[in-house]
Amino acid sequence: MKLERSGLSIPKETKKKNSGQEIARMKLKPGKGANKNILDKISNSNDVHALSIAELRQLAADCREVILSSISQTGGHLASSLGAVDLTVALAKVFDFEKDKIVWDVGHQTYTYKILTGRKDQMEGLGKKGGISKFLSRFESKYDHFGAGHASTSISASLGIGKARTLNRDDYKTIAVIGDGAMTGGLAFEALNHAGHLDEDLIVILNDNEMSIDANVGALSRTILNISSSKSFNVLRAEIIRQIREHKLPLAISNTLDKVNDSMMAFFTKGIWFEKFNFRYFGQVDGHNIKNLVSFLKLTKELRGPILLHINTRKGKGYSPAESDPSSFHGVGKFDVATGNSLKSASQGKSYTSIWSDSFLRVMEKDEKVVGISAAMLNNTGLASIQKKLPERIFDVGIAEGHAVTFAGGLATQQIKPFVVIYSTFLQRAFDHIVHDIARQNLPVRFILDRGGFVGPDGATHNGVLDLTYMRMIPQMALMVPKNGKELQGMINLAHKYDDGPIAIRFPRGSTTDYVDLSSSEADPIEFGKGELLQSGSDILLIAVGTMVDTSIEVARALEGKKLSVGVINARFVKPLDKNLIIEEAGKVNCVATLEENSKIGGFGSGILELFAEFGVMKPTLQFGVPDWFIRFASREEQLQMAGLDVESILDKLLEFCDRKSQ
Amino acid sequence: MKLERSGLSIPKETKKKNSGQEIARMKLKPGKGANKNILDKISNSNDVHALSIAELRQLAADCREVILSSISQTGGHLASSLGAVDLTVALAKVFDFEKDKIVWDVGHQTYTYKILTGRKDQMEGLGKKGGISKFLSRFESKYDHFGAGHASTSISASLGIGKARTLNRDDYKTIAVIGDGAMTGGLAFEALNHAGHLDEDLIVILNDNEMSIDANVGALSRTILNISSSKSFNVLRAEIIRQIREHKLPLAISNTLDKVNDSMMAFFTKGIWFEKFNFRYFGQVDGHNIKNLVSFLKLTKELRGPILLHINTRKGKGYSPAESDPSSFHGVGKFDVATGNSLKSASQGKSYTSIWSDSFLRVMEKDEKVVGISAAMLNNTGLASIQKKLPERIFDVGIAEGHAVTFAGGLATQQIKPFVVIYSTFLQRAFDHIVHDIARQNLPVRFILDRGGFVGPDGATHNGVLDLTYMRMIPQMALMVPKNGKELQGMINLAHKYDDGPIAIRFPRGSTTDYVDLSSSEADPIEFGKGELLQSGSDILLIAVGTMVDTSIEVARALEGKKLSVGVINARFVKPLDKNLIIEEAGKVNCVATLEENSKIGGFGSGILELFAEFGVMKPTLQFGVPDWFIRFASREEQLQMAGLDVESILDKLLEFCDRKSQ
Repeated sequence: MKLERSGLSIPKETKKKNSGQEIARMKLKPGKGANKNILDKISNSNDVHALSIAELRQLAADCREVILSSISQTGGHLASSLGAVDLTVALAKVFDFEKDKIVWDVGHQTYTYKILTGRKDQMEGLGKKGGISKFLSRFESKYDHFGAGHASTSISASLGIGKARTLNRDDYKTIAVIGDGAMTGGLAFEALNHAGHLDEDLIVILNDNEMSIDANVGALSRTILNISSSKSFNVLRAEIIRQIREHKLPLAISNTLDKVNDSMMAFFTKGIWFEKFNFRYFGQVDGHNIKNLVSFLKLTKELRGPILLHINTRKGKGYSPAESDPSSFHGVGKFDVATGNSLKSASQGKSYTSIWSDSFLRVMEKDEKVVGISAAMLNNTGLASIQKKLPERIFDVGIAEGHAVTFAGGLATQQIKPFVVIYSTFLQRAFDHIVHDIARQNLPVRFILDRGGFVGPDGATHNGVLDLTYMRMIPQMALMVPKNGKELQGMINLAHKYDDGPIAIRFPRGSTTDYVDLSSSEADPIEFGKGELLQSGSDILLIAVGTMVDTSIEVARALEGKKLSVGVINARFVKPLDKNLIIEEAGKVNCVATLEENSKIGGFGSGILELFAEFGVMKPTLQFGVPDWFIRFASREEQLQMAGLDVESILDKLLEFCDRKSQ
Repeated sequence: MKLERSGLSIPKETKKKNSGQEIARMKLKPGKGANKNILDKISNSNDVHALSIAELRQLAADCREVILSSISQTGGHLASSLGAVDLTVALAKVFDFEKDKIVWDVGHQTYTYKILTGRKDQMEGLGKKGGISKFLSRFESKYDHFGAGHASTSISASLGIGKARTLNRDDYKTIAVIGDGAMTGGLAFEALNHAGHLDEDLIVILNDNEMSIDANVGALSRTILNISSSKSFNVLRAEIIRQIREHKLPLAISNTLDKVNDSMMAFFTKGIWFEKFNFRYFGQVDGHNIKNLVSFLKLTKELRGPILLHINTRKGKGYSPAESDPSSFHGVGKFDVATGNSLKSASQGKSYTSIWSDSFLRVMEKDEKVVGISAAMLNNTGLASIQKKLPERIFDVGIAEGHAVTFAGGLATQQIKPFVVIYSTFLQRAFDHIVHDIARQNLPVRFILDRGGFVGPDGATHNGVLDLTYMRMIPQMALMVPKNGKELQGMINLAHKYDDGPIAIRFPRGSTTDYVDLSSSEADPIEFGKGELLQSGSDILLIAVGTMVDTSIEVARALEGKKLSVGVINARFVKPLDKNLIIEEAGKVNCVATLEENSKIGGFGSGILELFAEFGVMKPTLQFGVPDWFIRFASREEQLQMAGLDVESILDKLLEFCDRKSQ
């Protein structure tokens, strides 16, 4: 009963046997018969080799349970991982995880793999400081052969691992598991192309769940899925059948024609596209039928050269709320397993993403030349709701950040005003495209960098702490960082009006209470290149951007409690800097601090140092920012502490520094 | 007679008519009958519309002449441009260059386009300061709709331009012309994928010359070129033919089978791959047969949706030295048209690239775990000669910098030691791959950045003046810059031994006389993280890297002439900086200058400023580096002057600065 209420649907195969259901039911009553399940008997993934197909099915049910019960507590990538349970169990049955090397693309789908490779008991620490990663990580486990977080890297990495095997005269299998979404990335194509050329042993498993993070995009995907509906094929086929009937061919001919037909059908339906890359293609295989998966994996294991195994899975498989709404269950916070309802505490205020989205809709409604471009992240970048209203002017290009940018460049040459909306960390993929195609030609493309700064549990692969450096260094680029929602709204309006070249806005993950209700009033205008003097001081000047403005105000209050006179500047513009304001205020104090949620190397603070050097401002200056290492997953607050960007750390260091300087 | 000696082969069609030959001959005797040619009668590209096929052929011959005579004087991209003459003439015949928008990928092949769009008389200024670009540029001509220099951008840009047409309710044709080499880049794939999805009117012309800059790479290319040699196809085909013969089929069946056969042949030979992307495919068309080109272009012009026209051309077409050795004639300096021999003055010393290549071969011979990876630039990165000796350990991945890096990451996880050798400017394409796949996992991949700094006539798209910033900002990365060939040799040995994480060496275009003859001795070792104190001083300290070390020594001599005591540090390491040395020497002087051939934003000098800020070194510090704009084509010396990095500019500014500071 509980099971049904919880929405936990039993996979068809499991239902037949019923054992999985039994065990799943027991598991939901903790402590009672829990040891009877198969998973508890697996101490090493190679224990799976001995299991029967029925036991594998049960193991899959056990894994689904652990995933559901742990992710509902920790949050994580639920839908993808539920979709890949059966595949992972089948992989463990056929391959030797002690030797063979499986590289999972992105890492969304790997929780069963974590469970089977000794991390079952750590699942409750997923994404938490000191716990295990929400993705795979070479620092976490020897079974994680190549970590990820960004998409489309698995084939390149596996090919490298496979080639190394040959060079090292070693002996193991290399398997890349990549989703259909990640397959739209140019890197996957480059790797397929090279793999076909090298002819190295490599198994690529295309886990086709008919969607990347948002709905699937691109002719390629459509091709794979609808290849057999090709019109020219069907016409030809009908003609052949007609002639066969009319002329009553001798059997031999008829058989040959059948062969021709089959062969053509095979070409049409079995991914010619991949064969043309010198890949042997197998598929499509039901990715939830463990028996079939095991057969096909055994077959591919025996073969040499590049192999493509195409399987079909369903995101969220086995948990009906996730199956019916996989997008919402892609990356989840805490939720109630029974209802699927989110349990996250209502955050104060409104998310930056939704403020961006509301404001951008306003801009789009006012100006029909404005378009929005996303790279497979319509939902997470707030463009999905706009697309419903203005479908012709919102573009999802797939996981293809480089193309998103150069495509925007083409649009901008013709007086269209593109806003390219990409997470800070993912826009790294398009660095050269921004330099070479946009900035060098001084095209007015607007860049919206969501998730700038620390992002919490997603960790180092997703932190957006390099952008102020990599965007600032690009000639022609203007770069703004709002301190709150109101400023973001003003900056969006400014970016819309700004036609002099490329311009970027970077905002953080999370929420703000300071924003304008756009239904009743307009956002205050932001003046290009101007910072905001929050207070003038005579001892210490704090120059901050973005999230660090509020922090600076807190620091200032504390310093004032120590009888110090503190100036605070909200820079707003990382580029161009408000030189006059900054130099003038710096002239009044004994020491200066720069504060940013970005690398200390070459970022906003370095810009201030460059400015001071150029204009001969000789003030002791302390940079607060992200240190020169990769800060791993934890809560955002913990990450800020690790970076020394919490109020207390700043205060301690600043007092010591200014004290030392004034001696 | 002269013609034959010059190696100028007359295209077959022209030979037939002989008029082209006649005119070409006249043109080689300047002043005599030159006005008789067709080109001189073309004042606007649309004048081409009225020409007959015979006249188009003559026009093509005229253009080849102008290209040969100008490029032999200025240098430039000869082979590609000669290959695209007939295509360009045919495009001018069929399309309206005043309205329709042709986007050329890279720009190597565009000299005929330049000639036909009003730049014939400027050809002699190609790549020279104040002249016209070796590529296309929006700043140069309204006919250059999207400039380039890096590969694979044309389809993305054209798609943007095409979509803008729809949004603007405008009416023109968009045509992307892309080589088979550029088609291996992931960006081209991303764009094809999106184009098939959008179903926008777009003509993509695949200019297939069976080579990118080096020999063609990748399964895709092989597929396009050898598709009809497919074994399964041939087996099936033979079987059908056999059965037809044995059974003497009625005509209707036989015809049908022919149809089947043709149809299959069409699928096999006519690029199924592209049809699967929702592109209508036409080809392959002889790209030197103007009549056929005109017919096909007229056909594609009438159609809607995404179209792929596949043409075959020959690099260097019409000039036999270039036809027989297109690689050498890809980018040429001055040469003798009669012989094809290079006229460039013998440069002093040895090129950095060849020093790298010789040293790397040594390393590879010593250590079988070492491999080299290039992105379609085996020749220009010095790996081609090594590949001949060690073919199993040199990889050319195609124009696919991202994959080159992530593939290297996979290799590095298995104790293979990859050296990734890519021009500084092209490595920008792999920024995220370096961050996410290499540095974040702290994999010991060696990066060799050739052409760091200014590159002269290739201009802004090829200058490598951002790398010290974009590499320095990456956690875990070590970054070295040699002052001469000897140091480069020592750094290569160090990089080979360094297994603690990623490490990079950046060196310039050009030559050096300071290098070690490796046949007789070993390079001096370089100590990790240590700079070189060239001289200690008490007034001014110059801290320089790379090419600016020699410049600093010259500046120091001049300053010493003014009775100033000057320290000079050759930093060697941009990261980690030799803190102790730098801080100690800075403590002895009144003012400091940093010198680098890289952006002043976030680069080496900013690193010094960050160091000074951290350690409280309060010295007036002047940054010399590349200013925050795109410095265009000119000679390297002129570019250095434009950047204020010549000895005189540095001296003037430094004297003024230190004088001001000491007041």
